Amino acid sequence: MSLGFDLIRTTDQGGRRARLDLPHQTVETPVFMPVGTAGTVKAVAQDVVETLGAQLILGNTYHLYLRPGHEAIRRMGGLHRFMSWPRALLTDSGGFQVFSLSQLRKVSDEGVRFRSHLDGSSHFFTPEHSMDVQIALGADIAMAFDECTEYPAERSRAEESLRLTLAWARRSIDHFRGHQNEVVWHDELNGRTQSLFGIVQGGMYRDLRRESAERLIEMNFDGYAIGGLSVGEPRDLTLEMIAEVLPLLPANKPRYVMGVGYPDEIEQYARMGVDMMDCVLPTRAARHGLLFTSEGRLNIKNKRYAEDQGPPDPACDCMVCRRYSRAYLRHLMQAGEALSGTLNTIHNLAYYLGIMSRVRAELQAAERVPGGLPPFRT
Amino acid sequence: MSLGFDLIRTTDQGGRRARLDLPHQTVETPVFMPVGTAGTVKAVAQDVVETLGAQLILGNTYHLYLRPGHEAIRRMGGLHRFMSWPRALLTDSGGFQVFSLSQLRKVSDEGVRFRSHLDGSSHFFTPEHSMDVQIALGADIAMAFDECTEYPAERSRAEESLRLTLAWARRSIDHFRGHQNEVVWHDELNGRTQSLFGIVQGGMYRDLRRESAERLIEMNFDGYAIGGLSVGEPRDLTLEMIAEVLPLLPANKPRYVMGVGYPDEIEQYARMGVDMMDCVLPTRAARHGLLFTSEGRLNIKNKRYAEDQGPPDPACDCMVCRRYSRAYLRHLMQAGEALSGTLNTIHNLAYYLGIMSRVRAELQAAERVPGGLPPFRT
Repeated sequence: MSLGFDLIRTTDQGGRRARLDLPHQTVETPVFMPVGTAGTVKAVAQDVVETLGAQLILGNTYHLYLRPGHEAIRRMGGLHRFMSWPRALLTDSGGFQVFSLSQLRKVSDEGVRFRSHLDGSSHFFTPEHSMDVQIALGADIAMAFDECTEYPAERSRAEESLRLTLAWARRSIDHFRGHQNEVVWHDELNGRTQSLFGIVQGGMYRDLRRESAERLIEMNFDGYAIGGLSVGEPRDLTLEMIAEVLPLLPANKPRYVMGVGYPDEIEQYARMGVDMMDCVLPTRAARHGLLFTSEGRLNIKNKRYAEDQGPPDPACDCMVCRRYSRAYLRHLMQAGEALSGTLNTIHNLAYYLGIMSRVRAELQAAERVPGGLPPFRT
Repeated sequence: MSLGFDLIRTTDQGGRRARLDLPHQTVETPVFMPVGTAGTVKAVAQDVVETLGAQLILGNTYHLYLRPGHEAIRRMGGLHRFMSWPRALLTDSGGFQVFSLSQLRKVSDEGVRFRSHLDGSSHFFTPEHSMDVQIALGADIAMAFDECTEYPAERSRAEESLRLTLAWARRSIDHFRGHQNEVVWHDELNGRTQSLFGIVQGGMYRDLRRESAERLIEMNFDGYAIGGLSVGEPRDLTLEMIAEVLPLLPANKPRYVMGVGYPDEIEQYARMGVDMMDCVLPTRAARHGLLFTSEGRLNIKNKRYAEDQGPPDPACDCMVCRRYSRAYLRHLMQAGEALSGTLNTIHNLAYYLGIMSRVRAELQAAERVPGGLPPFRT
C-alpha cells in the first residue's frame, strides 16, 4: 500500500476533512506543509517543527540532488533518517527549481539539461531520473516530473508545455511503478511504498486545465496536484483555475495545490476542498521580518516596535508569543542575529498550522453530506 | 544584599565547590558562563539555553549600549525582561569591546572617546558612565571599567595601564555604590542590588598583578576577576598569572577568570579555585564548524564526515548528539543553513557545561579541608 485516504466529512461547499495514511505518518487534512528545502525547515530544529504540529514537510529534489546527493542520502537510509524527521515527507520533482534556479536550461522532449546554480556543473534531468532521485530520497510522496508553465503564457506555449508535462507524467508513473519497491524503507515498513502524484498544468486556460486533469486521471495517480499557480497571476485567476479543476478530480484521492499562499488563501482553498498545500511564504517572509498575525501583517523591522513590549500576536499562544516581545524580535532583526530568523519562523509556522487546525475542526463539526465515500486504499 | 557566597568544599589543590546566591539565580560553582553578546546566545533560543543548564550568561555592555540602547532596555524592565532570561546575568564593563571593536579610540584619565563600529557615531565612556549603563541593563553582576592591557606590553606600558585601571576601579565602585539602588528590579526583588566585581590587570608581570589584586581588595569589591588573559600570550603564562593572583584573593568571595578558554583549560582552572569563567570559544567555534568532543576537536566541514552516520560525540547525551549525525551537521554547514550554527552551538555548550557539571560533582565529593569559612553575604 502506498497511501490510504479516509474522508471523514465533506461539506456542501466542497470542503473535506480527511485522514491521509502515509508510511511515516497519518496526516490529518486539510494540511499545510512547511517547506524544508535542503533537508531543514530553515532555521528551525526538527524537535521544534514537531512541537509546532507539522505532520508532513517538503524536501526539494533539486537541492538535495545537488547537495549532498540522492545516492548519499539513500546510502544513509533515506531523507527521513538523514535529517532525523520521523513524520511524513514529500519531495517535489525538481522541475520547478530546474526552471527557476538553474542556468542555461535546454528543454527537449527527452528532458532538461541545466547547469547547477551552485557550481555551474552540467546535469540532465528526465522524468525517469527524477523518479530515481525521488525513490532514493524516499519521501512518503513523490511528484511527477513536469514543466511549470510560466505566466503569462500564450495559448500555443501553454499547449506545448502541457503536451510535454503529460508525456513526462506518463513516463514518470511508468518508471515509478517499475521501481517503487526499491525505496530504502520498503521492507522495514512492511512492504509499503511511496505514493506518486500527478500535476495538473495548462497555464491559465480552463480547457487546458480540464484536459490536463482528465488525461492525468486516466493514468491513475495516487493523488493529484494543481501546479503552475502563484506564478505571478492575479489572485482571482488562481481561484478560477482551482475552482475549475477541483470538481474534476476523483473525490477519493488527495488534492494538493502547490506553492500557495497567504493565510486567507490557504483557509479559502481548504474550505473549497483542497487537502494539501505548501508554501515558502511563512518561512521566507519570517527571515525578512514579516510576521503573519491575527491583526494582519506586521513588519517587525518597523521602528514603531522598538519599545513595544507586547507579544508579536496577542491572540497567539505559540512559544514565541508566550515568551518574547515585539521589541526583542525587532532588536534581533536589527542586530542581524540568527535567532531572529528562528523565532520569526516559529511564529509564522505556528500561525499557518493554527489556521489549518482551526479549519479542520470546523470541517469536522460541519454537517455530514449524505452519500459519503468508503475509505480509499492504493 | 547583592550576593551570597557559600563555600561547600575546598580541596587541597585549592578547588572550590560553592553556591553563589544572586538576585535572579542561585548559581552552583565553578560555573561556565555562555556569552550572549547582544542579548542572545547566538543562534540558540532561551528555552534551549535553559534546558542546557546554563545558570548565568553574559551580556556585552558595549553592544547593548549601542543597540538597542541601555535606556531603552531600562524602560523595558532591564535586560532579564527584555531578552526573557529568568536566570542570572553578568555584564562586562564595555571596556574590552571599546578597545577591540571601536574605531578612533582616544584614552585619557577621564575615559575613552571612540567611534561606534556600527555607524561611526562618537561616544565617550567613563567609569561612571559604564556604571550607569550597567545599572540600566540590570544584570546580577556588573564589572568595573578597566583597560585590558594588550599583549605583549612593555613594563612601563603595563604600569601605566594598571594605574589607569586602578583609578577607574575606584571611580567605578564609588559611583556604583551611590546608585546601586536604582536598578529597575530593586523593589521587586526585596531591595536586592547588583554586585560589582573588580578586575585584576597588570599584563604579564607578576608583581604588577599582585599590586593590582591588593589595591582592588582594599576597595572591597563583591568579587574579583582576573582580566587581560587569553590576549595572545602562551598558555603557561596564562596559568602563571592565574596561579600568582588566586592565593591573594579573599577566599570568601567569588573569583572570575575572564575570557577563557579551551575545554581542558576551564577544567584545569576550576580545579585550581576559579569559580567563574566565560568564553566565546564554544559558541564562536561552533558557528565555524568546530566541535569540541570527548574525542578531541572535530571540524565538521571535513569531507571525511560526508557519510558518517555516527553522532558528533559518541559519549555525549546532548539533544544534538541524540538526534543528528555528523553527516547531517556537515551537510547543514556546506549548505550554509542557519540550523548549522544552532545545532553546533548547542552541542559545544552542552560539552562545556557538562565539563563544569562533572568538575562540580568531583569537587563536591572531595575530602573536606579542615577550617572552612562561614557563608559570606555582601
